[in-house]
Amino acid sequence: MKTVGVVDTAFSRVNLGSIAARALRDTGGSIRIQRKTVPGIKDLPVASLTLFREGADLVMALGMPGRAEYDKVCAHEASQGLIAAGLKVERPIVEVFVFEGEVENDRDLSELARRRTEEHALNAYWMLFRPEELSHRAGTGARQGFPDAGPSGSHRRKRGFGNGIAKYA
Amino acid sequence: MKTVGVVDTAFSRVNLGSIAARALRDTGGSIRIQRKTVPGIKDLPVASLTLFREGADLVMALGMPGRAEYDKVCAHEASQGLIAAGLKVERPIVEVFVFEGEVENDRDLSELARRRTEEHALNAYWMLFRPEELSHRAGTGARQGFPDAGPSGSHRRKRGFGNGIAKYA
Amino acid sequence: MKTVGVVDTAFSRVNLGSIAARALRDTGGSIRIQRKTVPGIKDLPVASLTLFREGADLVMALGMPGRAEYDKVCAHEASQGLIAAGLKVERPIVEVFVFEGEVENDRDLSELARRRTEEHALNAYWMLFRPEELSHRAGTGARQGFPDAGPSGSHRRKRGFGNGIAKYA
Amino acid sequence: MKTVGVVDTAFSRVNLGSIAARALRDTGGSIRIQRKTVPGIKDLPVASLTLFREGADLVMALGMPGRAEYDKVCAHEASQGLIAAGLKVERPIVEVFVFEGEVENDRDLSELARRRTEEHALNAYWMLFRPEELSHRAGTGARQGFPDAGPSGSHRRKRGFGNGIAKYA
Amino acid sequence: MKTVGVVDTAFSRVNLGSIAARALRDTGGSIRIQRKTVPGIKDLPVASLTLFREGADLVMALGMPGRAEYDKVCAHEASQGLIAAGLKVERPIVEVFVFEGEVENDRDLSELARRRTEEHALNAYWMLFRPEELSHRAGTGARQGFPDAGPSGSHRRKRGFGNGIAKYA
Repeated sequence: MKTVGVVDTAFSRVNLGSIAARALRDTGGSIRIQRKTVPGIKDLPVASLTLFREGADLVMALGMPGRAEYDKVCAHEASQGLIAAGLKVERPIVEVFVFEGEVENDRDLSELARRRTEEHALNAYWMLFRPEELSHRAGTGARQGFPDAGPSGSHRRKRGFGNGIAKYA
Repeated sequence: MKTVGVVDTAFSRVNLGSIAARALRDTGGSIRIQRKTVPGIKDLPVASLTLFREGADLVMALGMPGRAEYDKVCAHEASQGLIAAGLKVERPIVEVFVFEGEVENDRDLSELARRRTEEHALNAYWMLFRPEELSHRAGTGARQGFPDAGPSGSHRRKRGFGNGIAKYA
Repeated sequence: MKTVGVVDTAFSRVNLGSIAARALRDTGGSIRIQRKTVPGIKDLPVASLTLFREGADLVMALGMPGRAEYDKVCAHEASQGLIAAGLKVERPIVEVFVFEGEVENDRDLSELARRRTEEHALNAYWMLFRPEELSHRAGTGARQGFPDAGPSGSHRRKRGFGNGIAKYA
Repeated sequence: MKTVGVVDTAFSRVNLGSIAARALRDTGGSIRIQRKTVPGIKDLPVASLTLFREGADLVMALGMPGRAEYDKVCAHEASQGLIAAGLKVERPIVEVFVFEGEVENDRDLSELARRRTEEHALNAYWMLFRPEELSHRAGTGARQGFPDAGPSGSHRRKRGFGNGIAKYA
Repeated sequence: MKTVGVVDTAFSRVNLGSIAARALRDTGGSIRIQRKTVPGIKDLPVASLTLFREGADLVMALGMPGRAEYDKVCAHEASQGLIAAGLKVERPIVEVFVFEGEVENDRDLSELARRRTEEHALNAYWMLFRPEELSHRAGTGARQGFPDAGPSGSHRRKRGFGNGIAKYA
C-alpha cells in the first residue's frame, strides 16, 4: 500500500484533482489517496510538503496557469518551489500543469487536461509500483496530453491520443 | 484559536494590512491577528518567518509592486522568497500582490486591492478552519479581485465582482 | 544597544557605506556599526551572513549596479542571494541598490544615492527600534530616493525630496 | 569501485541512458552503474538525490528538452534543481542536456546526442578516477557533442567530431 | 597561512586557473593553493563546496561562458549556484567569469581574461589578509579587467588598464 497526495487548485478551470484520483484508482494499484485543494499554484509547494508529512510517498501537484504573461511567471515560481519541496523531503512530486494558452477553446482545454492528468497518473503509478515500465520507455519521446513525439529517426509513434489538438507554442 | 500573521509594506499605496485584518475578523473565525509593516516587498519573506516564529499558523504577505519593469523583477524575487520561507517552516503563506499596472487609475486600484485582499483573507480562513470549502471549489476557476473565470465549458460564473475592471495584461 | 552590519562594494561609484553609517548615527539610536567592503554586489550575500555571525541584528547591504544588461542580471542574482541569506539566519537585510541607469548624470547619481541610502538607514532604525513608525506608514506609497508615490486616491504626498530627478524607467 | 547513477527520461527521443551506460563501461573503469528512468527533466533532481542515497558517487542526469519556448523554461528549472541537489549532497551531477532545437533533423539529433553523451561519460570517468585528465584540459575550450572551440589564440583544435553539425544558436 | 581553492573549467578557452594561481603567488601572501578543473561552469558550485570541505578559506571559481544565448542562461544558473554554495558554508567565493562576447577577437579575450583574473586574485588576497584595502576602495568604481569607472563626479580614474577594449554590452 502506497499513499499518493493529490493537490489541486480552485484557480484551475478543470477539476484536475478528481481526474487524477479516478485515474490512480483505475491503475488497480494498492493506493491510498490523500486530497487537498489550495487557492492557486503558488500554494502547491507548501501543500505538497504537508501531504508528505502526512505520509504521502509521492505527490501529484496539479494546476492550470492562465493566459497572461504574469501567469507564466507564477507557474515558473511554482515549478521551482515544487522542485525545492521534492529536494527537501527527497520524494517525487509529479507536476501536472495545463496552460490555458496551450489550446484555443474550452472543449480542447478539458480534453487536454483530462488526457495529461490521466497519463501523469499512470506515470505516478509506474514510479511507485513498476519503475521498469518507465525504464522500457526511456528515450521513446513520451508526451502527456499530446501524441508522443516518438524516438528520433522513427516514424513518429503515438502512445496516446493523436487527435490534432494544437501543439503548445 | 489560530494566529494569522499579516505583513504589509510602506511602499504600497493602499493599506492592505488593514483591509486584510478587517476581512479576517469578518469571517467570524477564532483568529488572533499579528501585524507587521516592512518597507517593501523584498522584506516580506524574512518578516513572514519572524511572524511564524512568533506563533503564526499562516501568514498573509501583502504588497503592491509599481509599474516599472524593475518592480516586476522585485515582485518575482519576493515571490520566490515567500515560497522558500513557507518551505522552510512548512506552513502556508498567502501572497497577495496587487500590481499598479493591473488597472489604469487610482480608483480602480483601490477597488481591486480591497477585493483581492478580502477574497484572499477568505481563502486564508478556509485554509485554517474549513479546508472543505476549498475542496468544493477545486477546478472552478476562482479568481481574487476580478470576476471568477469559472469552470471550463460553463457559461462563466461570477463568484465576486463582475464590474468590468480591466483584466490584467 | 543594537548592532547594524553595513556592507558595501568597491564597484559602487559612491561611498554608500559611509553615507549609511553617518545616517544611522544621525538617528540617535543606540547603534553599534560594523562595516565591511567587498568587491561587488554578488559578494554581498555571504558577507551579510558573516556580519550576522559577528553579531549584527540587521544588515544594510549596499550596491550600485552598472548600466549594462548583464549588470541587471548580477543585481537579480545578488537580490535572490540576499533574501536567501536573510531566510537562513531569520534576520532582516535592508537591500539598498542604486542603479546607474536610474539617472542621467553623475550629479543626480550622487544625490539619488545619498537620499535613498539615508531613507533606508531610517527604515533600518525603525525596524530595530520603532516598528510602529513603519506601521503608521503602511500603504502610504513610501519611496526611497524619489518623492513618495503617496496613498492611492490622494494628491500625491511627498515625504522626502520632490526635486524632479528622472523617475526610474 | 565507484558507483555512477544514470538517470534519463521517457520524454527524450534518444535513449541517452543506454548510451551513457555503454560509454561508462567502455572507459574500462571499475564502475558499478545504477540506472533509473523518470518521465521528464523536472523529475531529474529528486531522482538524482535518490541515486545518491542508494550509493552513487556521481550522477549523470540526461534529458532532451523540446523545441518550444516553454521547454527551455523547464530545462532552466531542471538545471537549477540539479545544482541544488548536488549542493545538498555535495557530490557531482554531470548534466547532459541535448536540445532538439540544436539541430535540424532527426539524424543529426541522434548523432549529437550520442557524441555529447559519450564525451560527458568520459568527463564523469575522469572526475571519479583521473582528475588530472581534466586538469590537463583546463582552458582548452573543450566542447561536448560539437568540435572543441580550442584555446584562445590557437588554430581551433578539434578533440572530437568536426563534422559540420549546425552550432547551437 | 590561508588556503585558496582555485577551480576552473575545460570549457574555458583560456587557462584561467593558472593565471589565478600565479597572481595569488605574486601577492606574496602566505597562501596554499588547491586546484581543481571541472568540465563546465555548472560544475563549479559543487566543486567549490568540495574545495571548502578540503580546507579552503576562500574559493576562486573561474569560467568562460560562450557567445550563445544559452551560454548566458548557464552562466546565470552557475552564478546562483555559487552564491548558494557560499551561503551554505558561509565562506566567500570569488566568481571570475569572462564572457566570450565581451570582446571581438581572441587577442582581446586573452588580455581581458588575464587582467580580470589577476585583479580578482588581488581582491581574494585582500579579502583574506588585508580587508582594509577593500574598505579604502569603497565606492571608488573599481572594475576588474576594464579601466575603473571611478567615483561619481570625479574625472574617471583608472586603476588598471585603460586600453580601449570594447566595453561589455
